[in-house]
Amino acid sequence: MKELKDYIKLHGKVANSSTLKVDSFINHQIDPKLMMAIGEEFKKRFQDKNINKVLTIEASGIAIGLATAFAFNVPLVFAKKKKPSTMNDMYNATVYSFTKKESYNVCVSKEFLNENDKVLVVDDFLAMGNALVGLKEILNEAGAEFVGAGIVIEKGFQEGGKFLRENGIHLESLAIIDSLENNTIKFKD
Amino acid sequence: MKELKDYIKLHGKVANSSTLKVDSFINHQIDPKLMMAIGEEFKKRFQDKNINKVLTIEASGIAIGLATAFAFNVPLVFAKKKKPSTMNDMYNATVYSFTKKESYNVCVSKEFLNENDKVLVVDDFLAMGNALVGLKEILNEAGAEFVGAGIVIEKGFQEGGKFLRENGIHLESLAIIDSLENNTIKFKD
Repeated sequence: MKELKDYIKLHGKVANSSTLKVDSFINHQIDPKLMMAIGEEFKKRFQDKNINKVLTIEASGIAIGLATAFAFNVPLVFAKKKKPSTMNDMYNATVYSFTKKESYNVCVSKEFLNENDKVLVVDDFLAMGNALVGLKEILNEAGAEFVGAGIVIEKGFQEGGKFLRENGIHLESLAIIDSLENNTIKFKD
Repeated sequence: MKELKDYIKLHGKVANSSTLKVDSFINHQIDPKLMMAIGEEFKKRFQDKNINKVLTIEASGIAIGLATAFAFNVPLVFAKKKKPSTMNDMYNATVYSFTKKESYNVCVSKEFLNENDKVLVVDDFLAMGNALVGLKEILNEAGAEFVGAGIVIEKGFQEGGKFLRENGIHLESLAIIDSLENNTIKFKD
């Protein structure tokens, strides 16, 4: 997605050889026009798939999820990291974060996912793919169909994308970073 | 906002006399059309205020914030509850949650708020008003102007709204709940 890559070139900051900061337009400050355009782009890429729900994880997935769900005109569900006191019956998965070096639980109320759902999963970053695998577990538990995954920025130098594609997942990444070495952002192709 | 009140009547669930569950359309599953309409409604109510930024708190404020920021065509900033490892220089405030009976820290990078900003703060619920007071502290620290607050659902039977209005804050709540007694949702007016 050219507009996104232009943003990344202009506003992205290389923190180190594995960390790209996009907090001025994606995950702390958000550019709403770019975000809605990202939703439209996912719509284009998955439009013939009869998606009836979008799933993501709080917190940084929510804006992407809303933009995408609005483009498809279907509900967004976001998985929670803490079980709300008012939630009883839910699907759970454990996700290990390599960035934070800790595991966390994600949960979705059973009210909002079932075997009739054809679900597009979206998230801001794809690195090792653990968050996606966690959400896939939740979809399996619900009997829902994991139609595909829409990722804003894939770290092409980490294993997640390769692993997921080899496992037959329809993965669409709007920008794939090949390398952050020497303080330089290199895109794939 | 009539559309919102109709949603609440139809899909809201009274968990107890102080807790209204709206997780089927606002804070777990989200109806994107309603959410974008909420953003448009805040635009109408604050349109002559020269707002140049929208501020909220993760996680359940983000969707409301994105919809509002898109309507105003200005950036959204969401305060984080955990300091990201890549964030150094930031504004902080402590917020006490009566629901969870615990305090948490919220922070915003100094990059994204300054003395030139005229800020609209938005959130899903207003109860005791502690989250808004925390965000007001952050705006004060930044020297930014707290133009007003847009709330989706105000619990009119708790103290936050009264306290904030008495302190001169321009507060717009799209639905004000007068009572949840006897398992019945009563709106103000």
